[in-house]
Order: sequence, then C-alpha cells, then structure tokens
Amino acid sequence: MSTTHPVLIGGQWQPSRGVETFVAVNPATGRSLPDRYPVSTSEELDQILEHAAAAAETVRKWPGERFATFLEAYANKIEAIADQLIETAHLETGLAVAPRLKDAELPRTTSQLRQAAAAARDGSWAQPTIDTATNIRSLLEPIGPVAVFGPNNFPFAYNGAAGGDFASAVAAGNPVIAKSHPSHPTTTRLFAEAAHAAATETGMPPGFFQMFYNCDTIDGVPFVKSPLLGAVGFTGSRNGGMALKNAADSVGKPIYLEMSSVNPVFLLPGAVAKHGAEIVDQFVGSCLMACGQFCTSPGLVFVVAGPETEDLIQKITERIAAAPVNVLLNEGVQRHLTLAVESLAGHGAKILTGGNIPEGPGIRFENTFLRTSSAGFLRHQALMQAEVFGNASLVVVADSADDLLKLARILGGNLTGSIYSATDGADDDLYLKLEDELRPKVGRLLNDKMPTGVAVVASMNHGGPFPSTGHPGFTAVGFPASIRRFARLACYDAVRPGRLPLSLQDKNPSGQQWRLINGQFTQGDAG
Amino acid sequence: MSTTHPVLIGGQWQPSRGVETFVAVNPATGRSLPDRYPVSTSEELDQILEHAAAAAETVRKWPGERFATFLEAYANKIEAIADQLIETAHLETGLAVAPRLKDAELPRTTSQLRQAAAAARDGSWAQPTIDTATNIRSLLEPIGPVAVFGPNNFPFAYNGAAGGDFASAVAAGNPVIAKSHPSHPTTTRLFAEAAHAAATETGMPPGFFQMFYNCDTIDGVPFVKSPLLGAVGFTGSRNGGMALKNAADSVGKPIYLEMSSVNPVFLLPGAVAKHGAEIVDQFVGSCLMACGQFCTSPGLVFVVAGPETEDLIQKITERIAAAPVNVLLNEGVQRHLTLAVESLAGHGAKILTGGNIPEGPGIRFENTFLRTSSAGFLRHQALMQAEVFGNASLVVVADSADDLLKLARILGGNLTGSIYSATDGADDDLYLKLEDELRPKVGRLLNDKMPTGVAVVASMNHGGPFPSTGHPGFTAVGFPASIRRFARLACYDAVRPGRLPLSLQDKNPSGQQWRLINGQFTQGDAG
Repeated sequence: MSTTHPVLIGGQWQPSRGVETFVAVNPATGRSLPDRYPVSTSEELDQILEHAAAAAETVRKWPGERFATFLEAYANKIEAIADQLIETAHLETGLAVAPRLKDAELPRTTSQLRQAAAAARDGSWAQPTIDTATNIRSLLEPIGPVAVFGPNNFPFAYNGAAGGDFASAVAAGNPVIAKSHPSHPTTTRLFAEAAHAAATETGMPPGFFQMFYNCDTIDGVPFVKSPLLGAVGFTGSRNGGMALKNAADSVGKPIYLEMSSVNPVFLLPGAVAKHGAEIVDQFVGSCLMACGQFCTSPGLVFVVAGPETEDLIQKITERIAAAPVNVLLNEGVQRHLTLAVESLAGHGAKILTGGNIPEGPGIRFENTFLRTSSAGFLRHQALMQAEVFGNASLVVVADSADDLLKLARILGGNLTGSIYSATDGADDDLYLKLEDELRPKVGRLLNDKMPTGVAVVASMNHGGPFPSTGHPGFTAVGFPASIRRFARLACYDAVRPGRLPLSLQDKNPSGQQWRLINGQFTQGDAG
Repeated sequence: MSTTHPVLIGGQWQPSRGVETFVAVNPATGRSLPDRYPVSTSEELDQILEHAAAAAETVRKWPGERFATFLEAYANKIEAIADQLIETAHLETGLAVAPRLKDAELPRTTSQLRQAAAAARDGSWAQPTIDTATNIRSLLEPIGPVAVFGPNNFPFAYNGAAGGDFASAVAAGNPVIAKSHPSHPTTTRLFAEAAHAAATETGMPPGFFQMFYNCDTIDGVPFVKSPLLGAVGFTGSRNGGMALKNAADSVGKPIYLEMSSVNPVFLLPGAVAKHGAEIVDQFVGSCLMACGQFCTSPGLVFVVAGPETEDLIQKITERIAAAPVNVLLNEGVQRHLTLAVESLAGHGAKILTGGNIPEGPGIRFENTFLRTSSAGFLRHQALMQAEVFGNASLVVVADSADDLLKLARILGGNLTGSIYSATDGADDDLYLKLEDELRPKVGRLLNDKMPTGVAVVASMNHGGPFPSTGHPGFTAVGFPASIRRFARLACYDAVRPGRLPLSLQDKNPSGQQWRLINGQFTQGDAG
C-alpha cells in the first residue's frame, strides 16, 4: 500500500491529520492510479487559515512588483515541468495530450500567470482615486486569504493552485489556499510543488501559498465562514457551489462562483438556410470538444421548424453519431450524464442518437443528441435548461419565430448566448427582438460563433447572471477585471502623507499607473 | 378621517390595493401627522415589477444622455420645492431645518443627482473595454429594475426616491422602484411627485420611476426574489437588511446593503496628552450630531488608561451632559436605544451620563456616555460592538497600548475607523501597529478626524466589510464607483459592428469617454 502524500501547510509539506484518503482514477482505463491522498480535517483547515492570515498581514503593504515576481517565477517553473504535468493530467483526466493539454491549456495557464503579473506590476487594476480638495483617496486593496476550489474539467487553467482564480487572487496581493479537485490530485501536487518552490525563491512568507487535496463538505462550511478568510473562488457544480455560497453569504463573505450554464445557441432561419453546412461543422465541433465538458459547451440549440431545419438536425445527428466517443473526466460525470439524459428522455425529449454507456474500456457515454418541441420545453422548463455536463446537447424546435422569442424569454442566466443569423440581412429583424431577450441573460453574446473557446483578454466576460455565477458584475477570466473580485475598497480620509499607500501619494509611483485624480484619468502626479 | 394617498404605479398615481394604512408621527410632539398612507400588497408589488420590467426593456439601449437629462430636470424640480421639502422633513424627522436639512442635506442631494447625471453622460463609468485582435468587447450595462429601500435618518440624501442609490441606479440606466421609509412618507411623496413630473417631461417610460410607501416584511421577500428585479439597494437596520439579503442571495440577486457600524475612534496616548481639548470638541460634536443618528456616528471610543485619559473622559462626560437633548427620528429609535443602553449597562458598562428618557415633550433620550474596561469589552464582545443607533457612545479604556491592539483585533467590519495620534511622532509606532489591525476592517480610515461627514467625491468609500455592508468592494456614495453596483458585465464576442452598443464601436462616441483599448486607456478610437 502506498503512503499518503503530505499537504502544504505554512510553508511545509506536512503529513495530513486526516485518516480518510482517496486515489484518483484513470478514466481511460477505469483503474485507480497509484498515489494516495489525504482528506483534510477541520482542525487542519483551521491551521491553514491561521498561516494564511499571518501571511496576509505580512504582505499587506507589499508593492505589486513582489507578487509579479512570484507569478513569473512560477510560470517559468511550470514550463520546466510541462511534460510531466501534461502526462499526469492526461492520465488523471483523459483529456488529449495535444492539442488540448500541451498546445492550448498549458500555454493559456502560464499566459494567465504572466498577464496577472503584468497587471500587478502596473497597479492600475486597483483604481487609485484621489480628490485633493477634500484630501480623500481610495483604492482597491487585497481582501485577505482567498480559498480557490478548482473544477474537474480544466486541470491547468482553472486549477486552484495555478488557474485564473489563483492568478487574480495573487495579483491582488492575497495569499491563496488551493483545494485540489479530487479527480486530479497529482496534477495539483505538481503545481503546488512548483508554486511552493517559486514562493520560497521569491521570498513570499510561508503561509502565502498552501494546498490541500480534499475535505468533507461539512468541514467546508466553517472553513468558508471563517473570519480569517477574505474571499472564495469556486468553479464546479451548482450543488457544491450553492452549499458554499449559502455559507459565505450568511457572513457577508465575497464568493465568486462559476456553477452551471447551458449556453443557448440560436440558429435563425436565414442562417440555417444559407450557412447550414458551416453551422453543422461548428456546432458538432463545439459540443463534442473535450467531450462536452466545457463550462461554455453548447447544451441547448434553438431552431425554428422547417425543412431546412430538419435537414440540419439530421446532419448534426449523423455527425454526432459518427464521431469517436472520448473518455469522460470521471465516474461522477458519467453518472450525472446518464441520469440527466434519462431525465430529459423521461420528460418527452427524443434521443436522436446516443443515450447509453458504450461497451469497451474507459469511462464513456455515447455522444448524445436529443430533440424536443417548444411545448415540451415549456412544460418542463427548469429541468430542460438544467446543465447536462458532458457530451449531450438538446435541440429545441420552435414553431415559429415568435415562438422562438417566447423560449428565449424563459431562459435563466447563462455564461454565453450565441445567435447565428444570415449575412444577407434576412434575419435582422428577428435578431433585434431576440437580442432584447437574450442580452440581459448572458454574460457573453456571440454572433455566428460557438461559445467554446474563452480568450484571455481584458474584454472577456467569463461570467453571467445567476445561476451561471453568483453575481453578474464579475468575470473569472481576463485581466485586470478578474483581479478586482479579490479586493476591498479602502479609503484614506485625511491620512497623513507618509502613511498613505504608494499608489495614493501625490507622486505617481511608476509614472505609468492610471489614477483618477480630481475626476480626470491620468498617469501624472496629483496636485 | 383623511383619505389614503395613492401610490405611483406604471406612471399613474393609483389608489393602493392595500387595506392596511399608517401615518407618520412628528417626533418633536409625539403626535400623529394628518396624512394617511397605504401598505402595499404583494399583488401591488407584482404589478409594480411588471411595469418596471417593461420600462427596463424600453430604455435598455438608451444613451446616458437620456438618463442625465432626467436626473438634471429632477434636481431642478427639487430645488423649486425646497422650502416645502425642508418644512415637511423637519416635521416628520425632527431634524433641524438649518443647517442640517437646508444647508447640508438638500444641496447634497441635488449635487448627487447632478454628479450622477454627469457620470451617465460621460459614460466612462461603464468601463468599455475593446480588444481588436480577438474582436471581443465588453462594458457594464444596466442590471434591470432596482428597488431602493431608504433609511429613516436621511430623508433627502438617502431617500429611496432621491438619494444616492436612486441616483446611481438611474445613472446606470435602470428603472427605480422606491420604497419610502414609513417615518417620512410625505417627504417621499413630494420627491416622488417631482421625480414623476421630471420623468414625464423628459420622456421616460411610465414604469421608469415608481414608488410605494410600505409593505409587510413577508411580502418583501418574494418582491426581492422576483426575476423581474435586477438588484436591490438597502440602507437601514441589520435585521431588516439581513432578511432581504437572505432572500436576494438565495437567487443570486445583487443586493447592496448599508446596515450597521459603530465607527471606532482610537485616541492614542500622545494625542490625548497633547490635543485633548480639540478631541473633546470634535468628539462631542460628532457623536451628538443629528442626535447620533448617522451611519458614521462614533459609537465606540478606545483609549489607553492614564491620568490624561481620565481627564478627557471627564470633560467629554461633562460636555455631553450639558448639551441640549434633541429629538429622535421616531419611537422605534427611542425604544431600541433604551434597550441597547440598558443592555450595555446590564453587561457591566457604567453609565457616565444619561441613560434615561427625559421628561417633557417629544421623542427623546438623554445624551448618553458609557464606559467599560478592556476586560469588560472582551467578555461581551459581540454585544459591546453592536450598533447603538442614537445619542449614546461607549468609551473603552484599555490597560496598555498592547491591550488597545488586542481590542482592535476583535473588531468586526465597520464603515469607518479613526485614529488620532500626536503630531510630534510620539504615537507613530503604535499607529503603524494599530493600522495593521484596523485597516482591513474599515471602509474608510481617518486620521485626526471624526467619521461623521461624508463628502460626495469619487474617492469616497461609504462602505466596508460585513456587517457594515454586504460586500466590501462597493461604495454607496461617490461617482462613478457607486453606479457600478447596479450593472452587469456584458461582453460582445464577434458581434457585428452595427449591432454593438455605441460605446463599443470603433469610434469613440463622444471623443471623451475613457475606454481600455488593447490594454491602453484612451479617449481615442479603436483600430
């Protein structure tokens, strides 16, 4: 029997106090992987919080440069162990080595860390604001230790120890407590080893970065509620997210969640008639990408009844049926997917292809495409628009354009919404009416484009109205906006000059930082 | 018996469906005022929500100019009825006509509306962000109808129908549903009449501004949870705020609360020794201002034991005892204040002066000053730092400087925290240690200054960690920051140019709007 890996607490790899342990499973084989990991106890989480709070006090006034240096050193270390990370994540998640892990997710992850570093160094993210007549000054300051709960589906780019929440929490100047997703603990351990080495080399205090592998849900509640914790970042299921949200909300603790999204795609009649072939390509590619296990996977497609629509549905069905069936992340995904498809079928949706667990090795589910009518969708609207995580999508056939608008009106909050319309203007009237319904309900509105693929740029919104997230004003991706989630607004009223943070002193500390001085944006000095 | 006033629904003054009614009381006499107001029913609130949602759809794409025009027309109308507003508010709240209502609060209110108008016109508040290489663009857009629950203590500047939340919600482009505080319904009616007239004259749709006077708490919950409502602004008691927060949180609805704050003031030994006389003046002035009924009233004072401290406490006590006893806002305030002072005294605090309801007319409570030791404070720390709304403050005498730091460490979140220190540097070491403890717990840190008086400037933070508010990242006062509370982040990914909001098109719509284009702040065009 293997020994249990230690956890990273207060700058030391220490044996966990937990007696419960777990192992990850290789979804391609269904067999357990050799490394054994601990489930941390409530006492252990308390200990972690104490270290994090001490670290927060130590770094509270550090300039952005210090956090930037750490983030960049960490990005370099990740690149040095890239092969090992990719191989490990492939074993733990079944995701393809290339292009997914090697060419897309790993470079994105290091790019995120470096973009966060650049934002931390620049300091404009903190929105320093100075009014000289009243001598009142304010900026965003670090909120305190941030706990990051990473999801199963992005072992790198959303990893609690390396992903976007990690990068933005650190860029804001906060210690991070990372929780591994139990599906890929060894990947997370490799990250944590690299992060710890980078933190040590760049002089971060011992509790600045800590990591544990898992905890019982019942212990997660007091952890999240602890006054020592500043904020929480969570990416995962709606049930898990809501449990943490309820705990955090009860004590006014900021929590940023990315929970569930069906990412409706509307194919307007003109687009179906004129661009059907491209749409089939793009839709099938998008919904089977990573076996449908993206937060932005198009789970719902809305079309208007007609012969061209029937042709489109048939082509999509054929293509989905013919596509290779990839492995899912873990048995939980397979189980939920099976139940969700059964439930849709049990409520009147017709399975056009797929719907079963296939024979053969590995954790899989047949690529699945379902169909329902507008009436069927409306009858069970909550169930029909619940996220089905994995390689299944539902097409809803509206009776008419007006009917399509009615369907859009009852949609809940989503990360994305896509509208395909004819390039010749044939759908323009309908587009405008549909946009009125859809725009307020989605974080990102796309034209003639599938929702998968989240560019890490300043203008990205990887967020949206509830239940896709917990607050429609924030994005989990993109700098500097994502950094501001992990900050509190700090005002200095008549505070003596020498006691002010550098960014609020009259002189612009870098000559580069953007500040709002007496109502004007400027990179200059105050007064 | 007087007839019951109508409510403003869908652009019409309509008789309320509610059968329950109420009247306000003149706190200076304790007698009822003549006007009778309705308590709206749940059905009425539903009707209001429907109108607000329709208005939100109508104005969704309107340029900031439209909202600015309305806000400015409204500010003008308020000035035209200023005398009537002041006289009415004085009758309903007991607050002084001058300087309070006439010279401070009314000008502040119209200034807020005009500052909000300027921000709406400028449009930079929405943080338009453009990345041309990926053709992704985003900005903050109106969140949908905003319900504003105004407090008892600022009949103008925080009124649901005229105050800061109203102004910022409108500047973001949202319809407002104002709930009057039941202590000053006629003041609110006058505002609502002016707002309605301004809305009509400037072409706002019928449901853009609506107002009701009161509802039962049980009906407030579904109102706040309604999917037709975009967000909530609340200023008031912790109990009332938490009831609405729980409802809003359960459906991921943004709610911005300002609930309770004791605004700790730390008087360091050097300051007490050298600046004692000024401190006595400033403290007594601040804690009795508006009879202690400010959100930023200094309810807690921390000092270190010593002869000069004893002298200071004695002088403050004498001054507080000698000051005139003003009327409180209403009987609820008097009742809570009586209970809170009794509770403090019952838990070991010593009443140095006051503590009783005085003889004579009007709703009053004696100006009250209490004292406790560090040990006494620590023993009942939750109770000792609960807000005591009204003219009572508690001084806590620490045994030593280290003991003072220990007290700071156990404080909860507050709107403000003040530190007085000697100007000769004698307190500088202690200041630094104290700032470490206090800074993360308060929204606004002051030096050598009492917390009352909230300047409406961009750098103001009228906010702070829980329980002073529900989220430490936002301010209720100051433009443009307060506007961003009532917005959602909206991203446009490959959306065709003609379909983009003006602020996201290549050309800068005004040549003035600040936008983040390809990582650079600019007032120029994109591409």
